[in-house]
Amino acid sequence: MKKREHKKIQAPRLKIIPLGGLEQIGMNITAFEYENDILVVDCGLAFPEDDMFGVDLVIPDVTYLEENLDKVRAFVITHGHEDHIGSLPYVLRKINVPVYGTRLTMGIIENKLREKELLDTTERHVVNFGDVVRLGKFSVEFIKTNHSIVDAAALAITTPAGVIVHTGDFKVDYTPVYGDAIDLMRFAELGRKGVLALMCDSTNAERPGITASEKTVGKTIDTLFQEHKDTRIIIATFASNVDRVQQIINSAHKYGRKVVIEGRSMVNVIETATELQCLNVPANTLISIDQLRNYPGRQTVIITTGSQGESMAALSRMADDTHRKISVGPGDTIIFSSNPIPGNEKAVTNVINKLLLKGADVIFQDVHVSGHPCQEDIKLIYTLVQPKFSIPVHGEYRHLIAQAKIARELGYTDDHIFILRSGDVLELDGDGAEVTGKVPVGNILVDGLGVGDVGNVVLRDRQHLAQDGIVIVTMAMDRNGQVLAGPEITSRGFVYVKEADDLMNEANLIVQSTIWSCQDSKTTDWNKIKAAVKTALTDFFWKKTMRKPMILPMILEVG
Amino acid sequence: MKKREHKKIQAPRLKIIPLGGLEQIGMNITAFEYENDILVVDCGLAFPEDDMFGVDLVIPDVTYLEENLDKVRAFVITHGHEDHIGSLPYVLRKINVPVYGTRLTMGIIENKLREKELLDTTERHVVNFGDVVRLGKFSVEFIKTNHSIVDAAALAITTPAGVIVHTGDFKVDYTPVYGDAIDLMRFAELGRKGVLALMCDSTNAERPGITASEKTVGKTIDTLFQEHKDTRIIIATFASNVDRVQQIINSAHKYGRKVVIEGRSMVNVIETATELQCLNVPANTLISIDQLRNYPGRQTVIITTGSQGESMAALSRMADDTHRKISVGPGDTIIFSSNPIPGNEKAVTNVINKLLLKGADVIFQDVHVSGHPCQEDIKLIYTLVQPKFSIPVHGEYRHLIAQAKIARELGYTDDHIFILRSGDVLELDGDGAEVTGKVPVGNILVDGLGVGDVGNVVLRDRQHLAQDGIVIVTMAMDRNGQVLAGPEITSRGFVYVKEADDLMNEANLIVQSTIWSCQDSKTTDWNKIKAAVKTALTDFFWKKTMRKPMILPMILEVG
Repeated sequence: MKKREHKKIQAPRLKIIPLGGLEQIGMNITAFEYENDILVVDCGLAFPEDDMFGVDLVIPDVTYLEENLDKVRAFVITHGHEDHIGSLPYVLRKINVPVYGTRLTMGIIENKLREKELLDTTERHVVNFGDVVRLGKFSVEFIKTNHSIVDAAALAITTPAGVIVHTGDFKVDYTPVYGDAIDLMRFAELGRKGVLALMCDSTNAERPGITASEKTVGKTIDTLFQEHKDTRIIIATFASNVDRVQQIINSAHKYGRKVVIEGRSMVNVIETATELQCLNVPANTLISIDQLRNYPGRQTVIITTGSQGESMAALSRMADDTHRKISVGPGDTIIFSSNPIPGNEKAVTNVINKLLLKGADVIFQDVHVSGHPCQEDIKLIYTLVQPKFSIPVHGEYRHLIAQAKIARELGYTDDHIFILRSGDVLELDGDGAEVTGKVPVGNILVDGLGVGDVGNVVLRDRQHLAQDGIVIVTMAMDRNGQVLAGPEITSRGFVYVKEADDLMNEANLIVQSTIWSCQDSKTTDWNKIKAAVKTALTDFFWKKTMRKPMILPMILEVG
Repeated sequence: MKKREHKKIQAPRLKIIPLGGLEQIGMNITAFEYENDILVVDCGLAFPEDDMFGVDLVIPDVTYLEENLDKVRAFVITHGHEDHIGSLPYVLRKINVPVYGTRLTMGIIENKLREKELLDTTERHVVNFGDVVRLGKFSVEFIKTNHSIVDAAALAITTPAGVIVHTGDFKVDYTPVYGDAIDLMRFAELGRKGVLALMCDSTNAERPGITASEKTVGKTIDTLFQEHKDTRIIIATFASNVDRVQQIINSAHKYGRKVVIEGRSMVNVIETATELQCLNVPANTLISIDQLRNYPGRQTVIITTGSQGESMAALSRMADDTHRKISVGPGDTIIFSSNPIPGNEKAVTNVINKLLLKGADVIFQDVHVSGHPCQEDIKLIYTLVQPKFSIPVHGEYRHLIAQAKIARELGYTDDHIFILRSGDVLELDGDGAEVTGKVPVGNILVDGLGVGDVGNVVLRDRQHLAQDGIVIVTMAMDRNGQVLAGPEITSRGFVYVKEADDLMNEANLIVQSTIWSCQDSKTTDWNKIKAAVKTALTDFFWKKTMRKPMILPMILEVG
């Protein structure tokens, strides 16, 4: 039977195109496209994987936006974390469109832009909760949520095809430290009117129950201050967790301690938050690090970066005895107000061990709560918003799958749940939704000043060099292939040369005999000679050491 | 007042000298020395830290044993895990003394020795629980414990200075899968007679409560089999956890599934355990991997290695589509019967993501129990043994400190608790204990066939190469410093060369002008020329790229 031709005139559909953030934690960036308008939600970076040697950060390939530059109306930012804003200084150079965000979010973005000398060339708009921003055919409402940073927003994106609710990263906190609880009422109103799709944070979707209020940590911290009245307190947390810092300052004030803020990123955020009045520091509480010596330890607290064991952060420098102003020992109580982010466990544990070895008391359990919703919180949002379609976002694939399971428990069928991959083009309207195509996406690696000049070739070489080092064979030849000098063999990262004389002498003989046999067979193509040397040495070293160093033969032509 | 001379004739004291295992998880090895006798408990390896690029494993420096070779009576092994036996094949080559261990422990050791062709030259003694072995002035009793491997033993080491109880790795399991519960009665008897010191497993000393019985996992597994009757089941666990494998086989048998054992180390251990009758496999249950195709998926279960995300293990190969016999997809239920060991979280999560992407159902929570004692279990052992001194062992520094806290809660004072570092010489007798000296200890790195030829220099080079790659500058010169060929610049792992022509051309000019200025100043010392080139290029590349590749200038003398 011949397939009947559909002639129904179809209204344009909304396209949702994640350009990053679905293969890994971080690098969140999603394009919303309707006819000639594109708006982009978030523009984050990712931190390099363990095998991305030497790479500082990873930013998204935004070719799709560059190719549709005239359509792009704005970046709309949900909150001020690196995985949501970190790529802006790179991407704005190519896609110079206005940026919208709430007060602290914009404050942190502006710090970044100032550093990269992009402040003057970037149009910026600070948005209040409840504000609606019109961007082409889109209108975007910023909705108050809670998260581990102040001023986090969810977005209600109204399009001709329907309303999309994008939660950003969030938690449900009925008793937040600063400002209001998440605006559940607004989520309910949107739900009542009808929501086409919900894009909800999946980070904690594997965890049952609910996420505890930030205020519970404040109580724990207060108890710790109470219990450690006789020691100096050093407390490490995330630089951007203004509420946490607020609670530490509150306890410090209560127990008569002066506060030092230490670590560049912490100082930056706290300055910005103070200026924007997101943080309330009682008079005469903050002191400079140089004033520490004027107070006994029991009257001070140091709030510091380094809670993830980052090797250059202030706490790690204290642990390594390389901090210029603070040295740790018995009489210090060091509190990790954080949990290790997956992948950082070993680094954190190394710092803990070093601090304990110095005789400090170290507390690292249960002084933290998550900033993301657990399973029951996610169910709450779905139940308020009642979206037609579920699009889990923010998290690794396992987390997206976990949210999909929750959606299924809530009665969603598989054809109403979309687990997207970066680059997928999801087209949707009230009638249905489907993935209709793919746009180019990828990771661009930033190493030092280089953006994108470290790719697969360079990374593979670095991995090879890291594994077994390099052996370089140099010789000088005349045009007829007569060896005028060398071969000389040099290695780095392969074996301890001073104790490997025999090995290297034998390798030299192998090279010489390889060259002789090339001469015998009248091979004058230097590439062939190089290839023969490479093969011979690779085999030799494998047999002798079971290692495969990179072999680099170099021939200089003389005369 | 002049200090009074002690003239009391002192009886010899016992020396306890940990040669590894206290700075990291793994590499457990401890010497017990009394006058002219040394016995060594365990001889484990450690796995390389993240920055030990290319290193396969880490073994202890046993210089102290080599220097006292005539005193060393035996290796006494507590159980068959790598961190307790893995260095034997290396250390026995230098210290060829008898090895004592229980049945399965010795079975696993013998597999290792056979592989390294050391079986015939090693004197081996299989010991039963309750047996007492006399070794010089020591006598060693093997006491039944429970652990995540069958036949684990604690040791009661009787010395003229007193009795030392060394728990090895253990847990308290009242309902073990195979064999008896830990012999608590014997611990109590020893305690009643008087124990000088307890060396107790600290791995879980930070965890409150008790460790659940291995049998609880069996129940969970059975429920999962019950709930997934229609899919193939693939279940990953530790190769050496014979009890776990037994329980999986029990459920497989109950639900009429055939069992495939997959992964070399799993096959080895299971073969050995079966031969030694530690594992009871019903007839017609095991099938070969090639027979899988003869059964529908719902009638099979694959027990596999790879629960830690190890890149070459069977499960990882299934996830990567590089397994030659098994391909995973919808219709597979994959169970991780394991928790990630600290440091492996990311590798495990990567495997989980890949398996989910293939459409498999993946279960990774709560299908495991620990093999180590939690806080209340540790208190139980202290309370039975009532040692005079507490010497926490097995764990990182943070874990040792956690056990010390427990000992303090039990009433031990700081002068009765000894947190040792590797190399410390603890001398003790009934009158007291003190650290009196230090012996040489360290990590010896094994890379391929090389044992110890990768040291700090090689590792630093590998780290440098991994970070920023290498730039090699070659030229040929005559004796007067005239350049006959080159300079040629080659790089690996630095920048993508095809797009860095300008950079490299500019670098070449820098090298040339550096050589000219050397010629101008009549510098003919090639080391000076090389140093000048190195400095000039390092500065140049840092300015241009903010990277610091290794710079390797090579000069060939011609004529």
